[in-house]
Amino acid sequence: MNPFVTHGGRLDEACAHFGGHPADWLDLSTGINPNPWTGAETIRPDWRALPDARALKRLEEAAAAHFETDPALCCAVPGSEAGLRALGRILGLPARPIALTYGTYAKAFASPPPDHAGPTALVVTNPNNPDGRLSPREDLMSALARQQHGGGWLVADEAFADCHPDASVADLVANDRNLAVTRSFGKFFGLAGVRLGFVLAPEPLLADLRKLQGDWPVCSAALAFGNAAYTDRDWIAATLASLPERGAKLDAVLARHGLRATGACPLFRLATAPDAADLFATLARAHILTRPFAGYPHLLRFGLPADDALLARLDAALALWSARG
Amino acid sequence: MNPFVTHGGRLDEACAHFGGHPADWLDLSTGINPNPWTGAETIRPDWRALPDARALKRLEEAAAAHFETDPALCCAVPGSEAGLRALGRILGLPARPIALTYGTYAKAFASPPPDHAGPTALVVTNPNNPDGRLSPREDLMSALARQQHGGGWLVADEAFADCHPDASVADLVANDRNLAVTRSFGKFFGLAGVRLGFVLAPEPLLADLRKLQGDWPVCSAALAFGNAAYTDRDWIAATLASLPERGAKLDAVLARHGLRATGACPLFRLATAPDAADLFATLARAHILTRPFAGYPHLLRFGLPADDALLARLDAALALWSARG
Repeated sequence: MNPFVTHGGRLDEACAHFGGHPADWLDLSTGINPNPWTGAETIRPDWRALPDARALKRLEEAAAAHFETDPALCCAVPGSEAGLRALGRILGLPARPIALTYGTYAKAFASPPPDHAGPTALVVTNPNNPDGRLSPREDLMSALARQQHGGGWLVADEAFADCHPDASVADLVANDRNLAVTRSFGKFFGLAGVRLGFVLAPEPLLADLRKLQGDWPVCSAALAFGNAAYTDRDWIAATLASLPERGAKLDAVLARHGLRATGACPLFRLATAPDAADLFATLARAHILTRPFAGYPHLLRFGLPADDALLARLDAALALWSARG
Repeated sequence: MNPFVTHGGRLDEACAHFGGHPADWLDLSTGINPNPWTGAETIRPDWRALPDARALKRLEEAAAAHFETDPALCCAVPGSEAGLRALGRILGLPARPIALTYGTYAKAFASPPPDHAGPTALVVTNPNNPDGRLSPREDLMSALARQQHGGGWLVADEAFADCHPDASVADLVANDRNLAVTRSFGKFFGLAGVRLGFVLAPEPLLADLRKLQGDWPVCSAALAFGNAAYTDRDWIAATLASLPERGAKLDAVLARHGLRATGACPLFRLATAPDAADLFATLARAHILTRPFAGYPHLLRFGLPADDALLARLDAALALWSARG
């Protein structure tokens, strides 16, 4: 299962290993909302012109309002992963490794040498990926105070935080705090192919980021979709209400087959199974792609099926596996 | 005319200053092909999934074939400007300023201190923007030898080089040469909103670039359009034939009004006028946007009108100006 432990969404490789065409597969390997914001179907971006500078500014303002952040402290990036990589380069601080979390940190931040005593970047994913653990805002505020005291930084990766506004520290970003927050458009709005995210950080850091990125950090579709989606209050409210309901339904199906799901994030659920590799392969033969993790042979992450019919398909495939147990 | 000397394509600001709606304007302020590759009108990118890793690899192979470069030395970037910025950060070398060229260099590379004796990055735009001057390949090879001898790098910005394959040094990029080349998708193919470009460079430098960019450097539209466009031999051949013809027609119109165009690049022509600011304003009042340059009050750059009717519109507006002279 080697290619599948790096990132989700490797449907092309899944087809190469287990057959079928991408359209036949039920892809539960990512935490991307399977019911995307619908405006992308009708908006036709203007691909001919350079992305518009004013539209970029409006997008950063609309996103900042959604995050409850000062718009002067909000910079669009081509995906939150790209934002984390840029932060790693700009801050230039080592980050202490965290046992089980999103693999990008290890690529964006160097590990400190064993005798390192200087400042570090503390990278906290909230909610954490893949286990969905939600850190209370108070814990992050304490961690920020400790980091700042030692001349270090707190980097809060809030790529999955849209469903948990109360846990976000986006509103705490300020010019006098060593706090940077990354946010994602593609996950909550279900449009990961657009490559749009945001870095919220003090202005001098953002000035360096803008210098690194240049004048057109995101494509015209990101501007067109992002501007409309972040101001679509009805869709946002309906999605905030429906995602937890769908997450609870997934939990019930998993539990029926002896799989206990952990975490607070409705976009993905982490299940424990004695032999997750066997479960992964059984589901893959039924053309359902889930997400295993290197070094964690008992864990398997499930993304949210888009509707009840797809949830029933997962239920049926899990029945084949649990009947054997 | 302050907002117009930084970049072309500021139609929104042109409307704010001179009235009209963007659709009313004839935008000649950029060097973007006004007759874009047509496939973008029918291809619908998959925005929901993450951009596909195999499609990215295929794109880099297709583009490398177009550039006549080893595909292992070709890395997609979200626009050639972003590629230049990343190169500046990764190489970390100062670049000696060049009198009149694309403004990004000053932002991507620091100027050397007055007493600097160490290695530098020599950034050469070929053909140069805005004057269209084409450096012979032999000159670039000599410059590369000098730079490499001193431990420095040659960076060839070939964003406008598609019409001049004989002048390109893309085929010289190799693991043992301190040569990096940037290429642009949006200019020749006329789709600047997609944000797609390429950095051609030795593998260790590309490894650092990929680490900085992360696993999804460009959006799904860039993968879909780029893969189809770089393998569309008929469109590429027809465009290579038609662009010089259109450039010659533009030269003839400019000459009729006493404006001599310089340079070899058919996507833009640089004209000399005693008072280019007056010419810029006259054309802007006719809702034709051209490109002035800070510190060069006698220069005005004209992009290529898309067809004979738009060329006639420019002709008529220039007649108002030259009749006054």
